Amino acid sequence: MRDWPRGVIPFGGDYNPEQWPREVWREDIAAMQRAGVTFVSLGIFSWSWVEPSDGTYDFGWLDEVMGLLAAADIAVDLATATASPPMWLAQAHPEIAPIDHDGQRLWPGSRQAWCPSSATFTAYATRLAEAMARRYHDHPALAMWHISNEYGCHNTPCFCDTCAVGFRDWLRQRYDSLDALNEAWGAAFWSQRYADWSQPLPPRRTPTFPNPGQTLDYRRYQSDALLQQFLAERAVLLEHSPGVPITTNFMTMRHFSHLDYHRWAAHLTEPVDRISTDHYVVDLLADPWAEQAFCGDLTRGIAGGGPWLLMEHSTSAVNWQPVNRPKPVGGTIRDSLTHVARGADMIGFFQWRASRAGAEKFHSALLPHAGEDSARFAEVCRLGEIAGRLGEVSGSRVESQVAILWDYDAQWATQGPALPSAQVQYPDLAIEIHRALRERHVPADVVYPGADLTAYRLIIVPTLYLVSDAHAAAIEAAVATGADVLVTYFSGIVDERDHIRLGGYPGAFRELLGVRSTEFAPLRPGEVVALSGAHSGSVWSEDVALAGAEAVLTFTEGPAAGHAAFTRYAVAPQGGSASGVRWYLATRPDRDTLAEIVGTLCASAGVEPVLPGAPDGVDLTRRRAADGRSWVFAINHTDLARTVPVTGVDLVTGRHTGGQCEVPAGGVAVVRED
Amino acid sequence: MRDWPRGVIPFGGDYNPEQWPREVWREDIAAMQRAGVTFVSLGIFSWSWVEPSDGTYDFGWLDEVMGLLAAADIAVDLATATASPPMWLAQAHPEIAPIDHDGQRLWPGSRQAWCPSSATFTAYATRLAEAMARRYHDHPALAMWHISNEYGCHNTPCFCDTCAVGFRDWLRQRYDSLDALNEAWGAAFWSQRYADWSQPLPPRRTPTFPNPGQTLDYRRYQSDALLQQFLAERAVLLEHSPGVPITTNFMTMRHFSHLDYHRWAAHLTEPVDRISTDHYVVDLLADPWAEQAFCGDLTRGIAGGGPWLLMEHSTSAVNWQPVNRPKPVGGTIRDSLTHVARGADMIGFFQWRASRAGAEKFHSALLPHAGEDSARFAEVCRLGEIAGRLGEVSGSRVESQVAILWDYDAQWATQGPALPSAQVQYPDLAIEIHRALRERHVPADVVYPGADLTAYRLIIVPTLYLVSDAHAAAIEAAVATGADVLVTYFSGIVDERDHIRLGGYPGAFRELLGVRSTEFAPLRPGEVVALSGAHSGSVWSEDVALAGAEAVLTFTEGPAAGHAAFTRYAVAPQGGSASGVRWYLATRPDRDTLAEIVGTLCASAGVEPVLPGAPDGVDLTRRRAADGRSWVFAINHTDLARTVPVTGVDLVTGRHTGGQCEVPAGGVAVVRED
Amino acid sequence: MRDWPRGVIPFGGDYNPEQWPREVWREDIAAMQRAGVTFVSLGIFSWSWVEPSDGTYDFGWLDEVMGLLAAADIAVDLATATASPPMWLAQAHPEIAPIDHDGQRLWPGSRQAWCPSSATFTAYATRLAEAMARRYHDHPALAMWHISNEYGCHNTPCFCDTCAVGFRDWLRQRYDSLDALNEAWGAAFWSQRYADWSQPLPPRRTPTFPNPGQTLDYRRYQSDALLQQFLAERAVLLEHSPGVPITTNFMTMRHFSHLDYHRWAAHLTEPVDRISTDHYVVDLLADPWAEQAFCGDLTRGIAGGGPWLLMEHSTSAVNWQPVNRPKPVGGTIRDSLTHVARGADMIGFFQWRASRAGAEKFHSALLPHAGEDSARFAEVCRLGEIAGRLGEVSGSRVESQVAILWDYDAQWATQGPALPSAQVQYPDLAIEIHRALRERHVPADVVYPGADLTAYRLIIVPTLYLVSDAHAAAIEAAVATGADVLVTYFSGIVDERDHIRLGGYPGAFRELLGVRSTEFAPLRPGEVVALSGAHSGSVWSEDVALAGAEAVLTFTEGPAAGHAAFTRYAVAPQGGSASGVRWYLATRPDRDTLAEIVGTLCASAGVEPVLPGAPDGVDLTRRRAADGRSWVFAINHTDLARTVPVTGVDLVTGRHTGGQCEVPAGGVAVVRED
Repeated sequence: MRDWPRGVIPFGGDYNPEQWPREVWREDIAAMQRAGVTFVSLGIFSWSWVEPSDGTYDFGWLDEVMGLLAAADIAVDLATATASPPMWLAQAHPEIAPIDHDGQRLWPGSRQAWCPSSATFTAYATRLAEAMARRYHDHPALAMWHISNEYGCHNTPCFCDTCAVGFRDWLRQRYDSLDALNEAWGAAFWSQRYADWSQPLPPRRTPTFPNPGQTLDYRRYQSDALLQQFLAERAVLLEHSPGVPITTNFMTMRHFSHLDYHRWAAHLTEPVDRISTDHYVVDLLADPWAEQAFCGDLTRGIAGGGPWLLMEHSTSAVNWQPVNRPKPVGGTIRDSLTHVARGADMIGFFQWRASRAGAEKFHSALLPHAGEDSARFAEVCRLGEIAGRLGEVSGSRVESQVAILWDYDAQWATQGPALPSAQVQYPDLAIEIHRALRERHVPADVVYPGADLTAYRLIIVPTLYLVSDAHAAAIEAAVATGADVLVTYFSGIVDERDHIRLGGYPGAFRELLGVRSTEFAPLRPGEVVALSGAHSGSVWSEDVALAGAEAVLTFTEGPAAGHAAFTRYAVAPQGGSASGVRWYLATRPDRDTLAEIVGTLCASAGVEPVLPGAPDGVDLTRRRAADGRSWVFAINHTDLARTVPVTGVDLVTGRHTGGQCEVPAGGVAVVRED
Repeated sequence: MRDWPRGVIPFGGDYNPEQWPREVWREDIAAMQRAGVTFVSLGIFSWSWVEPSDGTYDFGWLDEVMGLLAAADIAVDLATATASPPMWLAQAHPEIAPIDHDGQRLWPGSRQAWCPSSATFTAYATRLAEAMARRYHDHPALAMWHISNEYGCHNTPCFCDTCAVGFRDWLRQRYDSLDALNEAWGAAFWSQRYADWSQPLPPRRTPTFPNPGQTLDYRRYQSDALLQQFLAERAVLLEHSPGVPITTNFMTMRHFSHLDYHRWAAHLTEPVDRISTDHYVVDLLADPWAEQAFCGDLTRGIAGGGPWLLMEHSTSAVNWQPVNRPKPVGGTIRDSLTHVARGADMIGFFQWRASRAGAEKFHSALLPHAGEDSARFAEVCRLGEIAGRLGEVSGSRVESQVAILWDYDAQWATQGPALPSAQVQYPDLAIEIHRALRERHVPADVVYPGADLTAYRLIIVPTLYLVSDAHAAAIEAAVATGADVLVTYFSGIVDERDHIRLGGYPGAFRELLGVRSTEFAPLRPGEVVALSGAHSGSVWSEDVALAGAEAVLTFTEGPAAGHAAFTRYAVAPQGGSASGVRWYLATRPDRDTLAEIVGTLCASAGVEPVLPGAPDGVDLTRRRAADGRSWVFAINHTDLARTVPVTGVDLVTGRHTGGQCEVPAGGVAVVRED
Repeated sequence: MRDWPRGVIPFGGDYNPEQWPREVWREDIAAMQRAGVTFVSLGIFSWSWVEPSDGTYDFGWLDEVMGLLAAADIAVDLATATASPPMWLAQAHPEIAPIDHDGQRLWPGSRQAWCPSSATFTAYATRLAEAMARRYHDHPALAMWHISNEYGCHNTPCFCDTCAVGFRDWLRQRYDSLDALNEAWGAAFWSQRYADWSQPLPPRRTPTFPNPGQTLDYRRYQSDALLQQFLAERAVLLEHSPGVPITTNFMTMRHFSHLDYHRWAAHLTEPVDRISTDHYVVDLLADPWAEQAFCGDLTRGIAGGGPWLLMEHSTSAVNWQPVNRPKPVGGTIRDSLTHVARGADMIGFFQWRASRAGAEKFHSALLPHAGEDSARFAEVCRLGEIAGRLGEVSGSRVESQVAILWDYDAQWATQGPALPSAQVQYPDLAIEIHRALRERHVPADVVYPGADLTAYRLIIVPTLYLVSDAHAAAIEAAVATGADVLVTYFSGIVDERDHIRLGGYPGAFRELLGVRSTEFAPLRPGEVVALSGAHSGSVWSEDVALAGAEAVLTFTEGPAAGHAAFTRYAVAPQGGSASGVRWYLATRPDRDTLAEIVGTLCASAGVEPVLPGAPDGVDLTRRRAADGRSWVFAINHTDLARTVPVTGVDLVTGRHTGGQCEVPAGGVAVVRED
């Protein structure tokens, strides 16, 4: 093995040489070197090529590629190659196919057609992982192991009989007794009582709404089942290739919510494991860059605040959206630096060379169909240069005074059946508030409610529908020691079993916030209601009554007219220590109103921007090393040059800013502060 | 057993104590008494609790609840508990699961996962019904039996092999021979001829349009199969608990059309059986209250004009719509009284106490999550008071001079494959015309075409696409004896086998109406065409030619420009008795035009409002007792107080109106006329 | 057998006497004679009536009908009656049912519920074809054989195990080796390598995108499998009924793309075979008549430019659209003549008498439900008269100087998974450009890229995403010999294996056109971008760079702002012969812009209209006989009379035009030119 590239931000991507004839491989290496590529991820979909039939291995081609990469000093993130099982395995063991909610087998011919609960799959996958580990552990190109790929995309949820058995085992571990299960699921309703452990099922197609507790537990189970698959391969690597870093690429994107990454991350521990993720810009979003920045901060939160690896993103268009837009000029660099600004210590792409055939042939790549003679490849080379100059930021951490809470359990519960409003989407307010902060140049951590919250000046609790007693208490404790808190609508409603917290909404936070509602009044699609002042809200309202809090904004129309829409509750100091201010937001404000609210919150909490007086449209973060050095990242999203008041050397240009860093239109700067 | 509550309009709802710990039960009873609850429906989803394993009964908890209710003088509408089979039954007999149109089994874990044709289910359900009957027939709390729950929601249509066998048996009873079947279904088309009784199938997924005759007969069969399930339980109760009233709750709502309630009602006969229904307000409708009022009148029609029971509605929001709005302040009372005004002799709700878990935890209840300290519970208590004062209206009947015809066979046929226009929805015009009448304070009965039509001054025939010879003749006979009639487009087109009535449209009514069309010209979604005057129509047009009738309105644009849109045909008296005026409406008029048309019809027919000179926005009906006493119900849907010119004692306030009854904004009045 | 009707354009339609009692048959014949019917298609869905049980035939009723038709001198296009298998066959061989993409069996009870690959079906179908051939070969009514009906509607694609086996056989014939298959499908991607011929599958439901190569080959296979079914029946007829013309009706409609009719047509050869098709107007299209005219020209292209038969269209409304509009007055005649104008030598309808039951009872017919006393039947009779006068045009050919290329392979590939934009619909630009030409009175042939292109002055290549090397070379060759060419966006991108042509877009045509792009920039739904001048485009843009060509129009906004949108490349003559001008269009122009572009193209290429100075809104074509006689067809789509400058006898009126042919509002003229 070799070390991970040092002195640079590693730059590269997935490399799939098996898609090309041998003569192209040497061209690849040469072009990689021209582009500044310092790592590749290799072998991710190679199972059918390294093990062409059951137990027969063909490492020859891979040896050759590994040799070429070693010779070129390009580090290899080597896959266990288990992401997609080969045809022979699907043929020999049709029972490993997932069964979807329609009861249909998902056939081979695409990718990842394997059931999360399949022990048969585990046996074959770990056997291959072991063969790979034995073969390449000592290889001079090997720098990291890459287990599987994008777990849970697209083989979960599976509803097959194997999963049913696995689910029952999981339930027996979670619940002491059938009584506890029946109680947790509210099985008294609709005559669903389970009288034997053989009876629980995956939430397959039912005549009408399935049980929400069963549905929630099934999501937990599926995430755990895939985690067990990961851990099985990881154990093999730890045994047969000790000392080599290990990762598996997450998918911290708004539209992916199959895995509880906080729970996974608890199993990925330094020094062995690395948190890595993929991120793709979704053109259909109202503000794709807001989501991108949010997801970077979320990944950092999953990584415990430390650096993480951007395993995949795209240089330009993808192939899976209804309309696949290219990135604008400079967009490749801006997007990459956005991730580094938020803690990424690697810049990876899918993929090195654009495929000429197959389902992803229209996915952009480092090297386009058009070849090196293309504007995009020139931008890629420029990015490679920049990555080569950013090595010093490696290992530094992003600074933030604000925490936004994010919990997959809560997200899953808000996706459950029969809720007050399908208009409530778990990520909406979290991302909107994050954007409003970012526009004020205020960085935020996106963290698990179980994380250490004590250091934050402001805690945002967006749509935390489900909250455990422990998490609610942790939030209260942080407030008690001085943090301000904003809780938004549909938070604290149920416990971790999805049971209503009785006595009035928002149950878990009622006393903390000094408000109480008795009925939700969700707004219709497109419905906007006026608030006091020139403000407005959408999506939600409720009959908020004040129980200590004061109204800052009030609904002046709609089903909750006359009730408070935004409240403030400042509790007098008790025993010397002043607790934080508690805010409750009972609607989704329009953008200007939200900006104003966020301004109010920051002022009240004493939250400061990265730099005072920075211009609009420039995204700012600061990373700080353990030794005190700091770097300000500036991403100019506007089409005008912008001047950022920061003093130091801009690593992108190599020039000292003299206190006024000019960031070109659509450009980036990384200033090591004096 | 005990008597049904007397001297009040019974008030209460579903009670599901098995969802709560024992200590809550006594709180429940106390709160019921505070709220004025006089009945509960008990045990509806209790199968898995009273029969926790095959043949083993646990009545202890139910005995205790029944005892508490008896002690509190709360009447029990006791379920046979068969609505949802327990897990052990699903496990032992997987073949009772319904199979949907996609060919997928509907699994347990929700509710009602049983096949309408299953004799296995019948055996288990009747065994439980017998056990319940034996156990509780003599109980002092028992006032009524409640068989199953909301039949057909959501286990029909089922396409399983058991249903296939049942369907064939049903067909053999309906048709003398295979020739008759082939003729009825038009099997000559597309080579569908059946040569053996083993060949007919449910209308499962086919390459293109299924056979309309088969589809229509299958809907009839599925309704009949569920009716047989009901009758099987009813027979058990008649044997083992003679003398106790029996009901099963219908679902007379616009969006539910799985059962032919007229056919069912023919099997529910006094003195044993009671007609009951559920009604939920659907927020997505353009005018939810129009639908609510219509459905009340439809239920009365099903009940033969006599009183009926409102088994379930909601105090506020439900949980199954995309956005679940709460009811406005006073809405609980207005909606309840709307039903009583239209013949309900009971006010029932789902459910007593809002669940804390399960799929309906966000369904409102008499006692909300917030508890007794809530505005909604206060309104519930006020409603309980009012219900307590309305006992004298029990048994009285609603007066009406207008009949609107409603036929499930016709509805099913209009939902069949390959029709002229998917824009034609069976209920649309019926409900629109009902609303226009209601806005003029003209009550209407919504009745089966086979009902006695002789007493009406005006008969509305909306979209009666399918009509049997007998029904067409009955309408003609009513007109011959003086009733006016309005027939709307797409009526009288086919016979009960869905065979076209040849020679020109509207086949069955062509001569009656003095018009003839040869081609339909349905309008596109959103297309509005001008009529003569300032009028307009949508949805439909056709090339109406006058054959005796005169044109009142004419299409001035669109594909039928120049043809009549609304016609009048007054036939000269023959042999002394004057027959009624016949109107034909070949489009869906805009709201103002329809109001004008309805005004014309009422004037022509001599139809009178409940009260002359009543204000807009107040819904009025009159109920009259056999002894001549009468009560005017006034529901004020406006946010201003309204004065209704009626003289008598308002049972809601207890005050005499002095001729001018002031109904508060959003309020109600029930005036016993002097 | 008898001859096909001579001296007339044969006029008639499907006749389904088995749907009616015997007494109606004689009425039918009489009414046919009144209407001028000269042929019927008989027996299409009669399998279950002529073979009521396995191997038992009942020809009695068919003999009688054939006899009646012979006596009335009405020619019979006699079906092999195999379109829809009878119930007894479905029951005895459930494995012949198709399995759809959801994995669901398509059940009998509709039509065509048989698997394209089923040898069992072939055996039964050919046995019946033989029985029909033996029975009726010598019958005096028999004029043509009609094999099956509308192949591929609606039984393809089928995904059953029989198809899987058939597909594997087909693949083994197409590919020399598994290596070749793996290479063609790009199976290196996502670990899809096939290691054994037993492994390839139909593209059944997969976890995510299926393989595009597999998907494309499967479409080819399904088309071929149905072709084999056709050829099997044809072989039987050739043996047992030699000398009788044979046809099967195609479905050359925009929304039907299951069969490669060019490949089919190669097997239908004169003198035995006739190309026939069905066409139905789709009301949902923005311009249904543009599609109708296009499809006529496409059918002629499939027929190699010679005459073809319009087997089915409708007199008025159909029954399978969401809203089924009737045709306007005169529409029956206009639509029929539109087809004759484009080469049809027959006018056929579905069906003779409107059904009174079954799934198509609301489909219009020659004889409506209303009977002979209807405006539509009068129009039908008028059409019959006209058809009777048009016999002289039979066998003549339509003249055109423009070719529009159409390729089912390319269409299928553009329907494949994971493409740049779902907004790109293969037929859009082809039909739009065809319309723009038609509005200029310029006829066009719609032809296979493999057709002889040498005689055209202008070749249009719309969205030819997939193009083989041979086809690309043929286009180049035509340009080299003087033809101008317009290539539109998303053409020449892949080869016939759906492999990207590397080096820049549009790969196959880059050099020909003198342009090169490196990234697509598809536009979002509804997005319109400005071009230079007052022009605009939608759907598509890309970063076109000029490599020889000059920009005619440029994107001035949107993701390709600054790049060329429409280019012209005129290459200097080489070696004496001037090659044509090459145009590239990188967006979908608005209608006015496209009209201007088409004008420019026609002027540049010297393409002339049918008649100079003809009025707007009149559709013109010219048919010319081998002996030089010519006929101008004029269809007036406006509601004003129009004067067309043509000299000769109008066969419709029988009058000489005197140089100015007045075509009534909504009327037609067919002028034999002097």
